[in-house]
Amino acid sequence: MRGGANLPLVSSYNRGVVLDTIRTSGELSRVELAGMTGLTAPSVSNIVRRLMAEGYVVEAGQSASTGGKPRTLLRVNPWAGFAVGVQVDAEATTSVLVDLAGEVLERRSRRGGHRSAPATVMARIAADVEDLVAQAGVERRLVIGVGVAVPGPIDHHRGVVLTPPNLPAWHDVALRDQLEELLPGLPVLVDNDATVAVMGERWVGGADAATNFACIYMGAGIGAGIFVDGQVYRGSSSNAGEIGHISLDVDGEECFCGNRGCLELFAAPRSIVAAARRHASDFPGADTALQLSPSGRGVRADHARIARAASAGVPYAVEAIERSARYLALGVVTLVNLFDLELLVLAGQGFAHVGERYVAAVRRELATRSFARANHDVQVRLSPIADDVGAVGAASMVLHSEFAPQMHDLRSLGRHA
Amino acid sequence: MRGGANLPLVSSYNRGVVLDTIRTSGELSRVELAGMTGLTAPSVSNIVRRLMAEGYVVEAGQSASTGGKPRTLLRVNPWAGFAVGVQVDAEATTSVLVDLAGEVLERRSRRGGHRSAPATVMARIAADVEDLVAQAGVERRLVIGVGVAVPGPIDHHRGVVLTPPNLPAWHDVALRDQLEELLPGLPVLVDNDATVAVMGERWVGGADAATNFACIYMGAGIGAGIFVDGQVYRGSSSNAGEIGHISLDVDGEECFCGNRGCLELFAAPRSIVAAARRHASDFPGADTALQLSPSGRGVRADHARIARAASAGVPYAVEAIERSARYLALGVVTLVNLFDLELLVLAGQGFAHVGERYVAAVRRELATRSFARANHDVQVRLSPIADDVGAVGAASMVLHSEFAPQMHDLRSLGRHA
Repeated sequence: MRGGANLPLVSSYNRGVVLDTIRTSGELSRVELAGMTGLTAPSVSNIVRRLMAEGYVVEAGQSASTGGKPRTLLRVNPWAGFAVGVQVDAEATTSVLVDLAGEVLERRSRRGGHRSAPATVMARIAADVEDLVAQAGVERRLVIGVGVAVPGPIDHHRGVVLTPPNLPAWHDVALRDQLEELLPGLPVLVDNDATVAVMGERWVGGADAATNFACIYMGAGIGAGIFVDGQVYRGSSSNAGEIGHISLDVDGEECFCGNRGCLELFAAPRSIVAAARRHASDFPGADTALQLSPSGRGVRADHARIARAASAGVPYAVEAIERSARYLALGVVTLVNLFDLELLVLAGQGFAHVGERYVAAVRRELATRSFARANHDVQVRLSPIADDVGAVGAASMVLHSEFAPQMHDLRSLGRHA
Repeated sequence: MRGGANLPLVSSYNRGVVLDTIRTSGELSRVELAGMTGLTAPSVSNIVRRLMAEGYVVEAGQSASTGGKPRTLLRVNPWAGFAVGVQVDAEATTSVLVDLAGEVLERRSRRGGHRSAPATVMARIAADVEDLVAQAGVERRLVIGVGVAVPGPIDHHRGVVLTPPNLPAWHDVALRDQLEELLPGLPVLVDNDATVAVMGERWVGGADAATNFACIYMGAGIGAGIFVDGQVYRGSSSNAGEIGHISLDVDGEECFCGNRGCLELFAAPRSIVAAARRHASDFPGADTALQLSPSGRGVRADHARIARAASAGVPYAVEAIERSARYLALGVVTLVNLFDLELLVLAGQGFAHVGERYVAAVRRELATRSFARANHDVQVRLSPIADDVGAVGAASMVLHSEFAPQMHDLRSLGRHA
């Protein structure tokens, strides 16, 4: 049942290799392209001719002379195509329209809605998508597709949202198919927030040189998106990377997932806020220092207040964030021991204001606890995509699916046989 | 730096696909082969002609008539090539010679030696390899290579044994290069015991239909070998799958690896034996029931005695094994949550006599604790390669490297460019 590689599949793969090499290089000549990809000069010329006819690649003048004949440089045309990314989470729905370079041209956000019926949410998403395209003034036919990020568990291949604990009104919703009906002509892709975040890093965030890397995504929950040998790793049911449910204490408190002592129970924003509320009830006045909302709703807003208090040096807040950072780092040690990664990127609202504390904690624990630390370093950094990493990542998923070289192209025949 | 796929690489990949399809099917016709691989009839004919010229594939008579013209069947010729596998561990060095079907033709084992100088151990390995080939009466030129399994950490690409805690005399030993000097004309491959075990399952153990699966290997330590999208997953420094160093209690006892509360401290044979010795000193007579050796040396022998006592129903032994099985299962839950696997195979001497208890414990914990359990089942089974899974796996690594379709063939140009 393993598929052989035939010429159309190889050709689609090589097109991705060429486009990706031009994109990550900025500008380069056909000769450099051949050298970097290992493809022959005629192959490179053919592929480039096709990409130019499609409008994705343009000529960008001549290289500076280095003695020999000046060479024509190629670059990607960022306005030859666009993608929409949408993130649906527990507290908001955010949509962005990006160009081929990942630049955000339009953005829209709605608060609330996670308790609304999925049909209502989908209708709003469809309206937002059409609105973004109209506002940006781009031709709708140049929109390659719509990526949607949702909390797991999901079924990526069928585009179905299963029963995410962070979206209690959603049960087995055929998000992809229903959204495609509402948005005629626009293909829809669905994946979980952590997986789209890692595609955002690969496409927009500058992690494109790394072969094995992960993006630790902290929103309401904590997940990891993973690149393995340069490909997105989804696992057998598209639910890989559930780092938030690594048990750090196998006899600890029970988690909604069925496991005990999960990382999320120690480190997620919800746990930080719950602990701060307990602290505030024990120590009158603490709620003022932490500026907790009186209503007790809105984990995101309360967590942001605690994070800001930590960055201002309020002692309890510093302690709470450091505690979360230590446990997150201990979960990351396990992730690294199992995947043997070279790079970790921390992304998502959970790291706002306090990202450097998390980076420091992860580096510290890896330096003393990771199995292969004597063998190689693991780089740790914050995502350069400050806000909207979920929505930008969802848009990146569309670009990735269309343009990145995908090994499964080479094997897809076997899958369908 | 991503390599394009050119024709020689595609051709090498497709040769692997064809050979692998014939091998896993037993016997099949060229027409069936084209259907299963998605390759065109002329491509299949060319590749088969080449494989027949090399002797790896032979014609095996006609298919039973189903109305149409009978078709010529193809099968792999198991004696067209041979591989040697060697496992070096804390207590023994075992070598096997296998044919292309993974059948063991000769076997040799030496106890002790892990405290000897590496040069002495390598000289013995070289002598054993020549001896196995001579005893089996196979032509030396038909031996494709020698695979060696060692405890991690290692550097697979350079074939170097780093500083494995289970081989205290070994520090940065260039095992591959030195063994190749001692065995002129025989290429040597080196990998860790868990990774070769997963190749043994893929090649000999019948796990060849699974796309994402792991082999949990318990020898002196506990590791996991991992297949991802049908390829061996090694990570960025060939040290992926260190399941024995998943922390199950982040503030627990310190492990040699630097982490705390590691799975191996709860579940490995060494921990089982140490706990049994403490028990025996508290309860006189317990050592007789468990038949512990008076010397206190030889973890493997003592562990085997406890395992046999457990299978005979000795209460303390049952309890000790069940405790180990529970902790191993809890580590496996994390492995599954991160890799989203479809199949787990338990292999290695650590499971002898008590494998079914471990299988039951893993199934039990996955059924209540794994994140995607509502989404898909994970199969759990014992390895059918009863003994010598390390040595047979090491030989499988040679066969795998020579014959299995390897995605890196398609990208290797980029790597070397």
